[in-house]
Amino acid sequence: MGGDQAPRMVLRGANIARKRDPNLHFVFYGREPELKPQLDKLKKLRPNAEIVDCADVVSDDAKPSVALRSGRDTSMRRAIEAVRDGHAQGCVSAGNTGALMAISKVLLKTLPGIERPAIASFFPTLRGESVMLDLGANVQCDARNLVDFAVMGNVFARSILGVVDPVTGLINVGTEERKGHETLWTAREMLAELPLPGRFHGFIEGDDIAKGAVDVIVTDGFTGNVALKAAEGTAKLVSVYLQRTFKSSLFAQVGYLFARRAMQKLRKRTDPRRYNGAIFLGLDGITVKSHGSTDALGFAHALGLAGDMARQDFLEKTRNELAGIRRDPEGQRAAAG
Amino acid sequence: MGGDQAPRMVLRGANIARKRDPNLHFVFYGREPELKPQLDKLKKLRPNAEIVDCADVVSDDAKPSVALRSGRDTSMRRAIEAVRDGHAQGCVSAGNTGALMAISKVLLKTLPGIERPAIASFFPTLRGESVMLDLGANVQCDARNLVDFAVMGNVFARSILGVVDPVTGLINVGTEERKGHETLWTAREMLAELPLPGRFHGFIEGDDIAKGAVDVIVTDGFTGNVALKAAEGTAKLVSVYLQRTFKSSLFAQVGYLFARRAMQKLRKRTDPRRYNGAIFLGLDGITVKSHGSTDALGFAHALGLAGDMARQDFLEKTRNELAGIRRDPEGQRAAAG
Repeated sequence: MGGDQAPRMVLRGANIARKRDPNLHFVFYGREPELKPQLDKLKKLRPNAEIVDCADVVSDDAKPSVALRSGRDTSMRRAIEAVRDGHAQGCVSAGNTGALMAISKVLLKTLPGIERPAIASFFPTLRGESVMLDLGANVQCDARNLVDFAVMGNVFARSILGVVDPVTGLINVGTEERKGHETLWTAREMLAELPLPGRFHGFIEGDDIAKGAVDVIVTDGFTGNVALKAAEGTAKLVSVYLQRTFKSSLFAQVGYLFARRAMQKLRKRTDPRRYNGAIFLGLDGITVKSHGSTDALGFAHALGLAGDMARQDFLEKTRNELAGIRRDPEGQRAAAG
Repeated sequence: MGGDQAPRMVLRGANIARKRDPNLHFVFYGREPELKPQLDKLKKLRPNAEIVDCADVVSDDAKPSVALRSGRDTSMRRAIEAVRDGHAQGCVSAGNTGALMAISKVLLKTLPGIERPAIASFFPTLRGESVMLDLGANVQCDARNLVDFAVMGNVFARSILGVVDPVTGLINVGTEERKGHETLWTAREMLAELPLPGRFHGFIEGDDIAKGAVDVIVTDGFTGNVALKAAEGTAKLVSVYLQRTFKSSLFAQVGYLFARRAMQKLRKRTDPRRYNGAIFLGLDGITVKSHGSTDALGFAHALGLAGDMARQDFLEKTRNELAGIRRDPEGQRAAAG
């Protein structure tokens, strides 16, 4: 029921995701009277879909604490319960982010050894794709949290992005050892000792994100949130500048006609909908948050991402990685903070 | 003597700045044997220029504390001394940033009421130009520091960017009152009460930077540094994507030929050299830090910026604004933190 164009875009998104992956099965939690007419229109989706009628929805402006205490019969809560109870392998929502995180934390709990879940996302870089976390779940983080993020990001890069030996970097205001503050120095030392596949690169700076200098970008939720949005804002700015440029003269307009197909390819490749889906990592269950403003195509990507994570046994792999670190004496120290 | 192409680019930069503003006078601090042959080549610059021979330079990798204690005869120190002693109205360097800030702080001191100076820069947005601070001088800031930054940014926006009633925003991970952390909540309350020309907009998010949602963007040095570099990295990424796109097919290449002039205009407008020059605000003297990797054109912009600030009586205006706030009972509280 969440998102600007819900529930229509949710069902249509599922239909696109089904075309890509006919083995996906969908359970839609929401008001059946609104969902059913939409689902009836999508004849090929129907065999792969069911509706669970829920009386309530979590509103977009509800405070997480209020959403948590509110009725048991919200569509958001019941979808997460389905994940907890094993009726679903993952939950995707375009609704209230804070509420989704709060309810997921309470119902799914965190993975053993993880103190706080993080929000992660991946995006295109000069070298391919990188994953960054945290993007806003934890405004303030200690070194231990940052190390946990690195572990989760490492598993994500390997199992979902297909990077064999992921390189991890920690965001700072410089690459020298004593730049930044003490939390970062401690985290850096712990990460250097962590027995993870791949390599720890050390500190990176803001411009290393788009460069693709590393595969896994670790930072606190405040910095990550601002950096990602600053990057998104800049991409949008350049795109507007470019549109204006192509309209600025007759020659430029003709130029655009010639370059149009190439430009469309570029637009397709950098389409934010392709990267829709923020993953709540560190929970003992898969929850993916779609942008509220996305359309069916964007929502289909978020659904596909949840499907990939389930199929790749993402949780099991993370659990094993965390247990391995704890068995390792060096890692023990690191994991214990 | 600082910067990748120094001292040649410094002298050539001065020559470009002189062409734009024949009233500028230049004193070059550095090794005369290296400077003189370069200056002799620039015949029109010579009447506006002198060289002060200095035995030493601050190296790029010197720690600020070491640079501070090191010999009295470094070109950096003597250039800042000239500002302190009134022999120069501003100092521009492409050298070691940390050393430049440390020496400037010790020699020039901060303006009355300012506890810590900040690094500021301005850049293009969807609506024009905005100034952001701090960009890395203060990795951790309290509410009082953020308020000081807002005052300095306000004066800068009015006197240098020519914005009559600047709108100020405070970076956070959301725009709601209780997003982020306590320092931001306190700063927000203090800023709302501050008697400054213009308006306080409240919290802004990372994507509001490029949108130009506000004229003055206030944040701590860690966040500002990462956000600015993340934005720069993204702009570079999009530009590389675009180059590849224009080369991706024959049609696209022809398209580029038609659109070339318009593209060149865009490139000129967004040329990072146009925005070269990070300003050390809050000091009782003008210090501008040029990118170390810039060329003569970029250095000329940094020189022009220092010239503008001197001509606009930037320091006097900031002093008055700070005094005004302290006279105002509401401001008193705000300024006292």
